[in-house]
Amino acid sequence: MKFKTFAAAMLVASIVVSPLALAKDKVYRWKLAETWGPNFPVFGDATKNMAKMVDEMSGGRLQIRIDSSNKHKSALGIFDFVRTGQYQMGHSASYYWKGKDIETLFFTTLPFGMTTPEQYAWFYHGGGMELMKETYDKYGIMSFPGGNTGNQMGGWFRKEINTLEDLQGLKMRIPGFAGEVLAKLGAKPTNIPSAELYTALERNTIDALEWVGPSLDLRMGFHKIAPFYYTGWHEPATELQFMVNQKAFDKLPEDLQAILTYAMKTAAYDMYTQSTHESAINLATIQQDYPNVKIRSFPPEVMNAIKAENDKLLAEFAAKDPQVKKILDSIEGYKAKARQWTNFSDRAYLDNFDSK
Amino acid sequence: MKFKTFAAAMLVASIVVSPLALAKDKVYRWKLAETWGPNFPVFGDATKNMAKMVDEMSGGRLQIRIDSSNKHKSALGIFDFVRTGQYQMGHSASYYWKGKDIETLFFTTLPFGMTTPEQYAWFYHGGGMELMKETYDKYGIMSFPGGNTGNQMGGWFRKEINTLEDLQGLKMRIPGFAGEVLAKLGAKPTNIPSAELYTALERNTIDALEWVGPSLDLRMGFHKIAPFYYTGWHEPATELQFMVNQKAFDKLPEDLQAILTYAMKTAAYDMYTQSTHESAINLATIQQDYPNVKIRSFPPEVMNAIKAENDKLLAEFAAKDPQVKKILDSIEGYKAKARQWTNFSDRAYLDNFDSK
Repeated sequence: MKFKTFAAAMLVASIVVSPLALAKDKVYRWKLAETWGPNFPVFGDATKNMAKMVDEMSGGRLQIRIDSSNKHKSALGIFDFVRTGQYQMGHSASYYWKGKDIETLFFTTLPFGMTTPEQYAWFYHGGGMELMKETYDKYGIMSFPGGNTGNQMGGWFRKEINTLEDLQGLKMRIPGFAGEVLAKLGAKPTNIPSAELYTALERNTIDALEWVGPSLDLRMGFHKIAPFYYTGWHEPATELQFMVNQKAFDKLPEDLQAILTYAMKTAAYDMYTQSTHESAINLATIQQDYPNVKIRSFPPEVMNAIKAENDKLLAEFAAKDPQVKKILDSIEGYKAKARQWTNFSDRAYLDNFDSK
Repeated sequence: MKFKTFAAAMLVASIVVSPLALAKDKVYRWKLAETWGPNFPVFGDATKNMAKMVDEMSGGRLQIRIDSSNKHKSALGIFDFVRTGQYQMGHSASYYWKGKDIETLFFTTLPFGMTTPEQYAWFYHGGGMELMKETYDKYGIMSFPGGNTGNQMGGWFRKEINTLEDLQGLKMRIPGFAGEVLAKLGAKPTNIPSAELYTALERNTIDALEWVGPSLDLRMGFHKIAPFYYTGWHEPATELQFMVNQKAFDKLPEDLQAILTYAMKTAAYDMYTQSTHESAINLATIQQDYPNVKIRSFPPEVMNAIKAENDKLLAEFAAKDPQVKKILDSIEGYKAKARQWTNFSDRAYLDNFDSK
């Protein structure tokens, strides 16, 4: 074949074949803003895991760059980044947006709420996803489960809590809804930046604090200065959140939409598995290296008082807003059925063999 | 451009451009054989869910046809179908292959073993996947988690079990390892085809049976004829299994390999979520429509005797085979740490609020 003919052929080839090839080969470059700092364990692994799965499954056609808080400088600006389209995606937690929209508070976890398996069942089979869509649609944001921490611990205390009296004036770092509940019982909830928490606890600026659980608490070092580690009640199944700008999503080809959607779902489940692992390993380390750490549960008197205040507060929320009532009714109705099953399955199993 | 030149150009185009286009557009048609019959709930949904995700994410480039047992006529032939390449994929449960290779017994669940979240943590972070690969590599089979039932119930009994005496001569449908354990205590385990179970129980051919849990038991109708429903001990976290023929997998392009791998992982997690939901809903139905059904746990005397026999049997397995010992040591070592965490997180949470 002569060179001239070949060149002509290639020209035609590029005209005839390329449009399809181009559509299939087009690379979409997205940015994700996350609330967490760089290399934040577990939470930050969830975004990396998601982006890696998308890259592998799309053959590199959807590239997601992750900006941590050191880059975008606004840990709690994720909602607006995604709403305005400045970032196509975000990774954060829904309950951070309660100041913008009270409905968002109920898609992360609730004190005395569902466990992680119960809550996933509610999201995917009990109406949770549909309710979350109703909340986020008005902002042009798609919201998805973004990884679960499992049951969070009740926190590190320098003194034991034996009666309701012990809560009087207790200075505790415990933000959000749970802090409001404890305040009703005389505690003084405060919020303190994470970098200052250790020193604040060590110098008695605060008497107690809650963070997450062994998976993230170990590196903070609280076990060295607070001997009482209390079991949890306020965040039984904290689910992080992926957010996607609806318009950006609509511009993706269908196969990339599917790849992104399922990668987020898998990364969320995977984080729950990783949280379980890191908690188990780190708890074992704490118990081995710091045998003086005592794990306690609040006595029934304290727990029942907290529960009563919690129920009152939720009832107030529901009375103020019909959509909140709808969400809470869905959660409470589902939990009642799911908890029956949990009690006769995992709880009975764990209790029957005294596997402590 | 003249027609002749255009035709020549297209010929060249097909030579120069098509190989790439062909590789990208090539449709792979696979077949999956599953142990279950057509439209089998939950288990069968896992394979459909997996195939649907693969189809959507691959833009139709990987098509997986599902053959249920009515088609391939060999519910327990799945291992050989995949080993020989007659089917590229299978969906079944690893413990069905213990007759071929005793190591396979330990990748589904064990009596008194890990709960579902603990077991996923073991698979993905505690060495479970690596051990499963060592077992299945010799057959050219890749094995993956295939969906979890959650904690299975101990079974339906026509009479209450109050003492070890009540196990003497008890005719119970309970296959496998758990059956061997009960046999040591004087029970008479039998296996009966599922279609005949209801009649066998009704006519006192058997005194008791175990199936799965409310998710699948409700449709079997056992609650109409056996008033005692016992909590579980023998299958705390039954994980089904996807199998893939290694050679077939190696022939897939990298992006389809990733799509298949993550679709299987997601479908497995999804089945656990669905199992939780179906169990919750169906348990509520049983309790509402059949208030005479009594949910019981075996008394400590019975439970401890069962546990002792179970431990003896496992020790015998380990003594006979170093690879089995390696697998059991991994499971027991991981469970010890993970259970500590479960006890201080979900178990404490559930016990503290007496949420029965």
